[in-house]
Amino acid sequence: MKNIVTIGGGTGSYTVLSGLKNLKDVSLTALVSMADNGGSTGVLRDELGVLPPGDVRQCLVALSEHSDIVRELMNYRFSEGGLSGHSFGNIFLAALEKVTGDFTHGVEVASEILKVRGNVVPVTRDRAELSALLADGTRVEGVVDIDGADFEKSKLERIFYKNVVKLNEKAKGAILSADYLVVGPGNFYCSVIPNLIVAGFSETLKESKAKIILPINLTNKKEHTLGWKASDHVINTEKYLGRKADIILINNEPPSKEQVDRYKLEEGEKVLVEDNLKDERVVRDSLISHLFFTYDKTDKKQNVRSFIRHDSKKFAGCIGKIINK
Amino acid sequence: MKNIVTIGGGTGSYTVLSGLKNLKDVSLTALVSMADNGGSTGVLRDELGVLPPGDVRQCLVALSEHSDIVRELMNYRFSEGGLSGHSFGNIFLAALEKVTGDFTHGVEVASEILKVRGNVVPVTRDRAELSALLADGTRVEGVVDIDGADFEKSKLERIFYKNVVKLNEKAKGAILSADYLVVGPGNFYCSVIPNLIVAGFSETLKESKAKIILPINLTNKKEHTLGWKASDHVINTEKYLGRKADIILINNEPPSKEQVDRYKLEEGEKVLVEDNLKDERVVRDSLISHLFFTYDKTDKKQNVRSFIRHDSKKFAGCIGKIINK
Repeated sequence: MKNIVTIGGGTGSYTVLSGLKNLKDVSLTALVSMADNGGSTGVLRDELGVLPPGDVRQCLVALSEHSDIVRELMNYRFSEGGLSGHSFGNIFLAALEKVTGDFTHGVEVASEILKVRGNVVPVTRDRAELSALLADGTRVEGVVDIDGADFEKSKLERIFYKNVVKLNEKAKGAILSADYLVVGPGNFYCSVIPNLIVAGFSETLKESKAKIILPINLTNKKEHTLGWKASDHVINTEKYLGRKADIILINNEPPSKEQVDRYKLEEGEKVLVEDNLKDERVVRDSLISHLFFTYDKTDKKQNVRSFIRHDSKKFAGCIGKIINK
Repeated sequence: MKNIVTIGGGTGSYTVLSGLKNLKDVSLTALVSMADNGGSTGVLRDELGVLPPGDVRQCLVALSEHSDIVRELMNYRFSEGGLSGHSFGNIFLAALEKVTGDFTHGVEVASEILKVRGNVVPVTRDRAELSALLADGTRVEGVVDIDGADFEKSKLERIFYKNVVKLNEKAKGAILSADYLVVGPGNFYCSVIPNLIVAGFSETLKESKAKIILPINLTNKKEHTLGWKASDHVINTEKYLGRKADIILINNEPPSKEQVDRYKLEEGEKVLVEDNLKDERVVRDSLISHLFFTYDKTDKKQNVRSFIRHDSKKFAGCIGKIINK
């Protein structure tokens, strides 16, 4: 039995977990960012004072072995009345936090109800107030505004929490007993990094014997990582990890012309991450999905970058080969 | 195996089902009124166009064999922000109706998730618009206003649905295969009668070989049934049933002085139902609870009458004796 811990949040984690849950002899734990403050999640966070449920919900759905209808229920988004815009699963997690008095405990109860295979662990139990300092002195507060900030106009100096945000003990335990840590893929500054900058994370990582697998994002995010090549992804991630990655996963199958055109229309040029690495740590494989994803316009998190995604099965197949080598 | 079908809604059904679910060799089906339009239920009904979830939720919770925390979750009521006043369980059922496209199917999925012992069946699949015609010509629309109407000031002429409200096929099947039907206890005009006046109900009842058990309410409702004795309850219920009751259950243990005083303070004199029956169909037993129930003020349905309730265990014990005689 190999312990695999994924680190991320949002669509990236959903994709990875949907595939990895089918690997044999694997115990899965998903560490999830608690920094989100947008959409339904942001409203619940502000109005009820709960921790942000959205990313956790996606991971729970990915790992749920309940019926399709229950998974669909969790992602159902109300479109009328006072509940409009809310995802049912977010309300479910918010109510569970209220009833149990603790978000992490609530997620455990949710996991039982949803017959989750594996563990979903919020990276912190603390309310996480993400903040970014730009070179021109501007401070940007919260994931939504950071997601929309233009780091080309003014360089990102530092991304940090305004308050003390400590690593959840359960997350610490998972990192220490992991055989493999999969860092990403996902929105670099809004889904991946918010995990790595939690107090105690890099210290715990130094103690861990786990091998770090770093899947390189397929595309760059305009105004955040535009023009980054694979080497930039590695350097920037390792800066936050405080440790070298052991395995770097790079997709070697190009997207279709249709995918690229559609993507360019929304995000402009230089969106595909160029593979410029000559490094013995690199594993290259076909990891791309050629499906066209539709997205729910009321959910700001499912944005256009979703058009070019990793393929769950291919991704899991590649990880399977690595861990069983 | 005996098939027992309960008919009602709200607190009465909750009490009965909480006890009956522990009887051995019994298959339970709860038929539930779909007439409610108050509180969280009314808002969801109006805003989302769903069938009213509140009474069904109470029956599901009564029959759920899931953990206490999950049962507590279903009854959790939000008290802040845009969700304020909503019961989580109501939102859960509303979302399931949206996802499945059918309330009855949604209730089945909910039953599976909540590990419900027995079946909870909405008495109708139709939107039910309850209406009351008073002697002075006034028409009162909807359960909330009917609940508040004063039938002492102007007598109730007729209670009916404004639209065509047909018996759910599943409800019909349950009545036809029942060995016993337990009609009530509960709010007479707002929880019990709305089941009996559904189109096809009394016709189905005539075809059924089931014995009808009629538990007499412990207390009367001011301005609805004030001054009713046990015989009035029987006569009035049989009028709607179109059949004679086979067994009449009457509590023979008085409430405590404290219970009576507290009750009188809220509802005035003549609240206790006097046992004036000399009828061989009557079974008398101690059926009363001496617990003091607290109630959630944000939920208008949990009103003061809840202070004098049947005891789930005593009630089920009495039914057990009857069906095993």
